Amino acid sequence: MTEIITAAMLVIGDEILSGRTKDRNIGHLADIMTAIGIDLKEVRIVPDDDEEIVTAINALRTRRTYVFTSGGIGPTHDDITADAVAKAFGVPCEYDAKAYAFLEAHYAARGMEFTEARKRMARMPRGATHIDNPISGAPGFKIGNVHVMAGVPAIFQAMLDNVVPTLKTGTKLVSATVHCPFGEGTIGTLLADIQKAHPDTIIGSYPKYQDGTFWTELVVRARSPEALEAGRAAVQAMVDGLKKSG
Amino acid sequence: MTEIITAAMLVIGDEILSGRTKDRNIGHLADIMTAIGIDLKEVRIVPDDDEEIVTAINALRTRRTYVFTSGGIGPTHDDITADAVAKAFGVPCEYDAKAYAFLEAHYAARGMEFTEARKRMARMPRGATHIDNPISGAPGFKIGNVHVMAGVPAIFQAMLDNVVPTLKTGTKLVSATVHCPFGEGTIGTLLADIQKAHPDTIIGSYPKYQDGTFWTELVVRARSPEALEAGRAAVQAMVDGLKKSG
Repeated sequence: MTEIITAAMLVIGDEILSGRTKDRNIGHLADIMTAIGIDLKEVRIVPDDDEEIVTAINALRTRRTYVFTSGGIGPTHDDITADAVAKAFGVPCEYDAKAYAFLEAHYAARGMEFTEARKRMARMPRGATHIDNPISGAPGFKIGNVHVMAGVPAIFQAMLDNVVPTLKTGTKLVSATVHCPFGEGTIGTLLADIQKAHPDTIIGSYPKYQDGTFWTELVVRARSPEALEAGRAAVQAMVDGLKKSG
Repeated sequence: MTEIITAAMLVIGDEILSGRTKDRNIGHLADIMTAIGIDLKEVRIVPDDDEEIVTAINALRTRRTYVFTSGGIGPTHDDITADAVAKAFGVPCEYDAKAYAFLEAHYAARGMEFTEARKRMARMPRGATHIDNPISGAPGFKIGNVHVMAGVPAIFQAMLDNVVPTLKTGTKLVSATVHCPFGEGTIGTLLADIQKAHPDTIIGSYPKYQDGTFWTELVVRARSPEALEAGRAAVQAMVDGLKKSG
């Protein structure tokens, strides 16, 4: 039996909920998870609020194989992710000796003062292990199945690159896309029949609208190439049939 | 005492979680909520899964003044939002007589067959009221404090424009669209300057690509007609200037 590996993402930050910053990490994580065969099952966005973060972390970490967070690990007063994650796990949040020494040396080498604000970035839940940050130094961390990463997209992506090789990965989904020049109203019933006839595929229909015209991108996903090809061929045959009759 | 009005968003769709489609509705809703003084407190993204949708709807609608959903109201087999929302409210999901008659006439006027798939779009929870869809006809709906809208960004935005004036503290936003024959790379810096110079507007840029050409739809939104007109005129002047210099 194939083990199904699942993931959830928690995006932390008032600036995403206010619209001031547009999230770019959800789509990236989704792409990477799909590529390595992990099912991203849920995403939540919560504000910089202790209770909201604790509740979400505990809801997600108990239900999914992995949790990935973005945001709230910088040096300012509203960066409260480390404290909230520690609280969720019921452990103290404290200066991590290795992170502290690393950051002290990091700023010394740049002739920058190791301020109280910067020292905050060495705080993490007791027992956490580091996720290296090749861009700006301050590490993310992992505790249990929760991976805590930065919100700045370049740093989030670099940290995720370091995390990916440590993950159990599921069987990779393979996919095929069929371009369909008809809208969903035209193909809906036929497509539902194809989905029923190919239960080992996941057939998605993605409506597009541009300049007054509807068309559809049909994506077939499966865990085996054989199932994929059977599903794809059925969808393509449907489209070809409609073109002839249209 | 000022009443605090809160909102939550539920994004429904496997395609967002797989990374195939990148969400553009969260940022838009966040901008609009901020503009009209409603606090967006939480966003969740869930798959096209009955149980996940029901659980999320019930968690969010009991905790926030308003809930807005995107996705899953089209004509195909994976469009299960209406059924799931009905289940969350404990009411039947059935053909809505007004929506059915409207869609029947809508397709008849276009010489298009009113297929079983298209009929699905007339289904909604008993007691729901319509949210008009000026783009493709099939309405969204409102039941209790939950507003169910389409996932296609142009339709989501048009539906939201219809919902905003009905919300408590919803200062009505007015909007104007400027067609721009240039891509975002050309106009990005100029447009950012205009946004800065017109802080009481929200200027959205919606990139389009067709037949090998990039162009952009620029939408200016504001709470007053004066601010709107000032912003619109600035955007139009930018486009006109580029046309001359191009």
